[in-house]
Amino acid sequence: MHKVVLGFSGGLDSTSLLLYHLHAGNSVKTVQFLYGQLHDKEVYAAQRLLDYLMPQFPRQISDFGVIRLPDIFSGSALISNDPDDIPEGHYHQKNMEKTVVPNRNGVFMNILASICIGLQYDKIGIAVHQGDHFIYHDCRPEYIKAMENAIMLSSFPGIKVHCPFLDSDKGKILRAALQWCDELKINFDEIYSRTWTCYKGQELACGKCGSCVERLEAFHTVGRKDPVEYEC
Amino acid sequence: MHKVVLGFSGGLDSTSLLLYHLHAGNSVKTVQFLYGQLHDKEVYAAQRLLDYLMPQFPRQISDFGVIRLPDIFSGSALISNDPDDIPEGHYHQKNMEKTVVPNRNGVFMNILASICIGLQYDKIGIAVHQGDHFIYHDCRPEYIKAMENAIMLSSFPGIKVHCPFLDSDKGKILRAALQWCDELKINFDEIYSRTWTCYKGQELACGKCGSCVERLEAFHTVGRKDPVEYEC
Repeated sequence: MHKVVLGFSGGLDSTSLLLYHLHAGNSVKTVQFLYGQLHDKEVYAAQRLLDYLMPQFPRQISDFGVIRLPDIFSGSALISNDPDDIPEGHYHQKNMEKTVVPNRNGVFMNILASICIGLQYDKIGIAVHQGDHFIYHDCRPEYIKAMENAIMLSSFPGIKVHCPFLDSDKGKILRAALQWCDELKINFDEIYSRTWTCYKGQELACGKCGSCVERLEAFHTVGRKDPVEYEC
Repeated sequence: MHKVVLGFSGGLDSTSLLLYHLHAGNSVKTVQFLYGQLHDKEVYAAQRLLDYLMPQFPRQISDFGVIRLPDIFSGSALISNDPDDIPEGHYHQKNMEKTVVPNRNGVFMNILASICIGLQYDKIGIAVHQGDHFIYHDCRPEYIKAMENAIMLSSFPGIKVHCPFLDSDKGKILRAALQWCDELKINFDEIYSRTWTCYKGQELACGKCGSCVERLEAFHTVGRKDPVEYEC
């Protein structure tokens, strides 16, 4: 049994990673980040998800809470106030570079590491996956490996970075999550209806931004209807 | 001419690093951190130092300001509310381990990196030095090198971590600072009287904690009286 401090955004990937750990019998301390993101609805989604899941796994899930970061990130459409700044289309497009938040994962992973060392947990978990590699430098395997190496050296005996989706796309992640839900006897649709993925952060998910497009493709791949409601 | 985002605590080391960059003709953006440290007086010291130095170097120094971090650090005497929790003696003693703040430099360096990338500066600066190596894992050369490698990969074309005091003790740093002050025609005593080093954060520096002991040794080494007032 491992004790994991998990970066938990309330999106599809980190929710699936939470399920992974529940399925593996690990203890998970969830951490959410508010960093000025336009789609801060994801944090409320994370809270709704925890309200739903914690009573079912009271001995496995505990919540560190929401970490409000000061204004350290600049130059990204994700921290704009205007949903129209968010580019539409697929992640494999040049215009998606606008959504890069400088070194976001570096800041998140190191805060998770500080919490993990302080609480004497043994690893941190992040849900970076293959679809993020193209435009996000701080999601690439060579970066994650280098940061894992640095974090391992920051304490003794050292903590690990656990990033099991690094070589998986969202479809593969969702297919695995379906099976974990089945084996844990929990309701897949109830869980994923509470997740939030859209970058625009409006009342309904837009269905057009890179994040929505990739999510919809994943549900299509596994042959399920996304339980979240879309604008179009 | 380089553009450097500098972790600036208001202590002896980072003040000396600021002087290093002024002497080298670089532009410096200073960043202070409030993270629950008992010795938060260092942040006010940093502000007093900037008030003194900025008018003399208006084109080289700009201040990002104070970053208030949420409660992510635990298990360290440095973030206790009680000065009596701070161990006395030399850094090369086992009891100084109480002053370890888990992965503090990892969090600081990654926040500096996010600011640096966002502002299109070219490096981050930190004043880690040889005296920190014994008890602080996140101050050791192998750690700094590993984190530099990770941070370099977090953006394109990448930013550097500049840590010129890594192999110097406080005496060597102070000797160099004396020369920089001389060549810059600025007043060494006026500057160092505004620095704050003591971990206890009381009205006067205690002169007994590891941080004070090392500072006093450094002034003794260079044959100068420390312009800061001590309790004893």
